[in-house]
Amino acid sequence: MTTMSAPRVTSADVARAAGVSRATVSFVLNDTEPGRVSETTRQRVRDAAARLGYVSHAAARSLRAGRSNLVLMPATQAAIGRLVSDWLDDLQQGLHRHGYTLVLHGGHDSDPVDLARSWAELRPAAVAVPGMQLTPAAVDLLRNAGVGVVLALSPEAVPGAYTVIFRHDEAGRLAVEHLAQRGRRRIAVVMPQERGLDLYAGQRLAGARQAAATHGVQITPVPLAYRLADAARLARSWHDSGWDAVFGYNDDYALLLTRALQDEGLDVPGDVAVVGADDLLVAQLARPRLTSIAFDTSSGAELAALIDRLIQQPGTEPGVLHTAAMRLVERDSS
Amino acid sequence: MTTMSAPRVTSADVARAAGVSRATVSFVLNDTEPGRVSETTRQRVRDAAARLGYVSHAAARSLRAGRSNLVLMPATQAAIGRLVSDWLDDLQQGLHRHGYTLVLHGGHDSDPVDLARSWAELRPAAVAVPGMQLTPAAVDLLRNAGVGVVLALSPEAVPGAYTVIFRHDEAGRLAVEHLAQRGRRRIAVVMPQERGLDLYAGQRLAGARQAAATHGVQITPVPLAYRLADAARLARSWHDSGWDAVFGYNDDYALLLTRALQDEGLDVPGDVAVVGADDLLVAQLARPRLTSIAFDTSSGAELAALIDRLIQQPGTEPGVLHTAAMRLVERDSS
Repeated sequence: MTTMSAPRVTSADVARAAGVSRATVSFVLNDTEPGRVSETTRQRVRDAAARLGYVSHAAARSLRAGRSNLVLMPATQAAIGRLVSDWLDDLQQGLHRHGYTLVLHGGHDSDPVDLARSWAELRPAAVAVPGMQLTPAAVDLLRNAGVGVVLALSPEAVPGAYTVIFRHDEAGRLAVEHLAQRGRRRIAVVMPQERGLDLYAGQRLAGARQAAATHGVQITPVPLAYRLADAARLARSWHDSGWDAVFGYNDDYALLLTRALQDEGLDVPGDVAVVGADDLLVAQLARPRLTSIAFDTSSGAELAALIDRLIQQPGTEPGVLHTAAMRLVERDSS
Repeated sequence: MTTMSAPRVTSADVARAAGVSRATVSFVLNDTEPGRVSETTRQRVRDAAARLGYVSHAAARSLRAGRSNLVLMPATQAAIGRLVSDWLDDLQQGLHRHGYTLVLHGGHDSDPVDLARSWAELRPAAVAVPGMQLTPAAVDLLRNAGVGVVLALSPEAVPGAYTVIFRHDEAGRLAVEHLAQRGRRRIAVVMPQERGLDLYAGQRLAGARQAAATHGVQITPVPLAYRLADAARLARSWHDSGWDAVFGYNDDYALLLTRALQDEGLDVPGDVAVVGADDLLVAQLARPRLTSIAFDTSSGAELAALIDRLIQQPGTEPGVLHTAAMRLVERDSS
């Protein structure tokens, strides 16, 4: 068993073990100058490297080759439940089939350009960024650093990047339109208090406000942390509020609030109509079954295929590639 | 706006723009040989690098420094819900406070040593591996590649690695012991069919079998995919089964099955007692409220502090660091 203080195996160790120069080790293991080293020597170097457990350096290789097989996605967001993790799993499997490795990068930075720099340092073949963390200056930095594909999953086009449009405002618009058509007039909109969700919550609220203006109904944003006590507090305040409906941000928050409203003796949908979003399986386990907004997103596998195509065809012009659609799934809670 | 075909900015570009040699650019940006370059020149080089958007290479830097600030965790598992994603978020925040960046690596490989090699290629300061993907040979490879800290989150000690023991069998043991004490005699144990869960499911089943032998009750493993139709099928088969209880693998599967059992006209806990695991908030939203197994794990923040301590104190001997405890939280479903 190697102990803690064992020094790292270097190419010099391999050279010594194989009785060749370091340059020869480099030629063989990096497959440069193939004619220059005999097959016998090549085999001796490979055997020595395997025996010593020498790991050549992905980044050093990518410095030579100009790119790696990594596809980087920032992971700065808080947990956003099963929808996102299923989608990521699907994306990861898909990228693997195309020969890439997905890396979720947990760097934080208040400056989008500094954040992009920390991504660029890993020399990924592609960077895919959900949300709006990607400014034009950050795109420029990534491009200058040799990242071939910069893909934004964003509510609007990002100059210089490929963009798949995700209109979160559309979720709020659909929910409030549906509730207004059901005769509801005073609609609460849940604003989740967990880290990383305010961007999407703000977009969903903006869409809700638009639909409210069109349909002449009233919107009130209500903060809610994903905790029983917080939901109970909000439910207690309901009696004097006059709210006859709520758009629950997503299914998790909508179900938490539904339970608290029921515990306060309010009937769903009789007293309060509830709409969630993301159309998770739990929406169908609740009683009443929860009306939700389904995202007809590209599956993760489709996104993986798109990323592969963009990497393989470096001439493709940046621009909006497609727009993810949404639709309301009506059930019993509204 | 930089176009797709813009070449990467190199240190030669910075040298040209600053009117110095490439060696000088290297001295300044890597802070080597500090006495050799005047402050005026240093500033000129830094300005040129900033103006051109030059990104020095993290891996090239780590080649020089011997390590990076990355903490790598494999992400080969399927979505396992809010428990894991909350924990990861907590870990990520904690590592950030200590100056590290968490990277979730999506590499797959049937050979644990090949998989470890792909991690080592990023030259992380530490690798933390949940589950049992870490063999002694893989630990050796990581150590030889210069990864200072190899941490296993595992049901048993991994030779050469620091280990935090997670006893998933304990969850099955606690659940079955509780159900036996409640007078249940024929207990179904859910085996989830989703990718990446079979390792934990197998451990939980092994613990359930142990407790069953001790208490003289009968265990039947039942496969269940996380889908309404599959739960309905399993619930229909319940009538002829004689099962008076079920350990639902975790809260998500337990709640899915509870709903299907209720839809089949079975009373929970009257006809069937149900126990979940992970003690998610949704366990308290269901009716009846779900009995569950809580993991008193280190929080992600505590794990981050542990990783930092191990990186800072490279002399610490590998071994079992501590064992995560579990306890049953009794509610209304059992």
